Amino acid sequence: MEPSRWLEQVRAQHPLVHNITNLVVTHIAANALISIGASPVMAYAREEVADMARIAGSLALNMGTLDDRVVEAMEIAGKSANLVGVPVIFDPVGVGATPYRNQVAAQLTDSLQLALLKGNGGEMSFLLGAGGQVKGVDASVVSNDLPRALKEYAQTHQCAVMATGAVDYVSDGQRVWMLSNGHPLLAAITGSGCMATAVLGGFLAVAGKQQTPSVYAEAAIAGLTCYNVAAEIAAKKAAGPGTFQSCLFDALYYLDGRVVNEQAKVSEVSLS
Amino acid sequence: MEPSRWLEQVRAQHPLVHNITNLVVTHIAANALISIGASPVMAYAREEVADMARIAGSLALNMGTLDDRVVEAMEIAGKSANLVGVPVIFDPVGVGATPYRNQVAAQLTDSLQLALLKGNGGEMSFLLGAGGQVKGVDASVVSNDLPRALKEYAQTHQCAVMATGAVDYVSDGQRVWMLSNGHPLLAAITGSGCMATAVLGGFLAVAGKQQTPSVYAEAAIAGLTCYNVAAEIAAKKAAGPGTFQSCLFDALYYLDGRVVNEQAKVSEVSLS
Amino acid sequence: MEPSRWLEQVRAQHPLVHNITNLVVTHIAANALISIGASPVMAYAREEVADMARIAGSLALNMGTLDDRVVEAMEIAGKSANLVGVPVIFDPVGVGATPYRNQVAAQLTDSLQLALLKGNGGEMSFLLGAGGQVKGVDASVVSNDLPRALKEYAQTHQCAVMATGAVDYVSDGQRVWMLSNGHPLLAAITGSGCMATAVLGGFLAVAGKQQTPSVYAEAAIAGLTCYNVAAEIAAKKAAGPGTFQSCLFDALYYLDGRVVNEQAKVSEVSLS
Repeated sequence: MEPSRWLEQVRAQHPLVHNITNLVVTHIAANALISIGASPVMAYAREEVADMARIAGSLALNMGTLDDRVVEAMEIAGKSANLVGVPVIFDPVGVGATPYRNQVAAQLTDSLQLALLKGNGGEMSFLLGAGGQVKGVDASVVSNDLPRALKEYAQTHQCAVMATGAVDYVSDGQRVWMLSNGHPLLAAITGSGCMATAVLGGFLAVAGKQQTPSVYAEAAIAGLTCYNVAAEIAAKKAAGPGTFQSCLFDALYYLDGRVVNEQAKVSEVSLS
Repeated sequence: MEPSRWLEQVRAQHPLVHNITNLVVTHIAANALISIGASPVMAYAREEVADMARIAGSLALNMGTLDDRVVEAMEIAGKSANLVGVPVIFDPVGVGATPYRNQVAAQLTDSLQLALLKGNGGEMSFLLGAGGQVKGVDASVVSNDLPRALKEYAQTHQCAVMATGAVDYVSDGQRVWMLSNGHPLLAAITGSGCMATAVLGGFLAVAGKQQTPSVYAEAAIAGLTCYNVAAEIAAKKAAGPGTFQSCLFDALYYLDGRVVNEQAKVSEVSLS
Repeated sequence: MEPSRWLEQVRAQHPLVHNITNLVVTHIAANALISIGASPVMAYAREEVADMARIAGSLALNMGTLDDRVVEAMEIAGKSANLVGVPVIFDPVGVGATPYRNQVAAQLTDSLQLALLKGNGGEMSFLLGAGGQVKGVDASVVSNDLPRALKEYAQTHQCAVMATGAVDYVSDGQRVWMLSNGHPLLAAITGSGCMATAVLGGFLAVAGKQQTPSVYAEAAIAGLTCYNVAAEIAAKKAAGPGTFQSCLFDALYYLDGRVVNEQAKVSEVSLS
């Protein structure tokens, strides 16, 4: 299915995406979701996250600024989503940077059934044991073995997996795709990956409950391609990272599905 | 009194507005207040909110991303403000979405004497028992009985009441006004209602302590009209929701009181 | 050393700056750091801040929206940084506004060895006992005795000290400098001082571990001059505070070191 069809569905359904995300990107993640046509809700309290996750179209968890309360809320929300089949995305921001982050990432991937595990190349390399190196939460070194590691993880854990970077990789456990859209200015603003995670929540929500890893992978490919083509459009209007951030919301809001289809650079990777 | 006179007072007095608001809008709420001429302070710790609320010109409470600590801080700050007559605004963001939000909204409206209760149409319809339906924290369905319910609530609780939307309603318990300024792009950014709440804090602060619901209603009408006319001006310069957000601060900062007076669309609603 | 040389080092080294800052500015502080060429990490959990501070190039503490958990995290992170010589900046936002803030500022300045203590003129006047008056967290009255008080504090506590405002003062305990770059629009956006604090983290990081107050003062002078010249450039492109905020990131990102050197207004103050 073409990306434009997924985009149309997001705009038609305005799916509710429940985000438990970090303090740095809360505002821009919500705005990215509204701009693409989804309906964001940011809710963190253990008293309500189970209720919110249950009625949402998807749940997007992001551990960028975790603490014990946020981790508890993520686990409660994730289990609630799992019970009713609401797709769960997990973005292990900064895994590899501190032992605490490693422990929390392991805890959440162990205790929840994910629809999509998604991080940047360095985080995914670390988390999947494919080597790689993490510096802080933004910069990192990606392993060459990453595509194969993604496929194996997806197969073993029955979920879609995505590693982002200058080139993005997605796997459903059977195949691996390479996505080559985007723009260097995305690396010049904080939270560009976290906004992508939120936006993917909109696409997984319209994929629906209890779908196969292949369906969620297709939704993720469509979602990231829409996001990255919007970034390409925004970059043409921007005079630097500050105006780029504003233009990115404009571009998402007025994104033309036909343009996305035409500019999409998605290809299958053959693992020899 | 014309809106321009209220605006002049905000700019002359730079009133201190103490905000306990949600994690999504903290930054834009503070910027909206500075842009309109007020002096924001965001303080959340139970150790200091009583002190801060006491010296503020007004206290604006917003439960968009509540948790038990925030709720405790809101109650402490609200009671401290009540003791010295500092006007308190409460924005029950997302009430109706989860039982926890309903319980907290009831707790705060019960325990505090509000100067202004202000939510979007769906939230107010739910909270006032006038029907309506809430989806997440942004979208909702408004009840036709809302204007009457607002008037009754205001009369019973001796406060001003406001319900925002494509059309906004305000009541002081005796009369109901309809406000028709604003722009659809306000619905394309997160926290546009929360920014309005913060801005209203500036106007209620210059209304002063222990005023009647009628005075606070007039301040709220002036404040929301200024905000919405600024949105109309910003929309003319914007290329989408991202640039609109930036232009909104510019428009608030350079807002011309005479233009507000000319473009203001405020009329009394007759409840037959 | 000229400011341009410091700027080049930040861009060459991409130093990791660990920020424990307030909820209002988390996003813009991270973006300011990326724009200037540094690598920000925002981490708050007591479980990880010691690990993060230890591997960072500098630690920037900002108590704008403190609570007991944040204060505990600041103290843990600060002590961890002190142990390995990582330079620590402390920005006592809003000190003087509530007893709680005063107590926390005293606690942190007592228990940590700072490389740089930096606040606005009103906060520094209060904290150093030089008179002055604080209103909320943004507006304040500066004492005339401030330059001398800064020098004495720096000498006694063996750290660099900075007080910002229309004119900024820096001291290393032996000398006092006056910095006169910047633009009034900085006062029209929230967190302009907090962004400066974050940016200074990038410059102190390239100064290195366990340097003298004079070296850290030089780094701070270079960093604030870069930031303020960027603000001057941004103001020329902006139509108000909203667009100014976006243009500030653009200007930091494309800042030309030679322009900074040419426009820098730094002079030594003689205390008679």
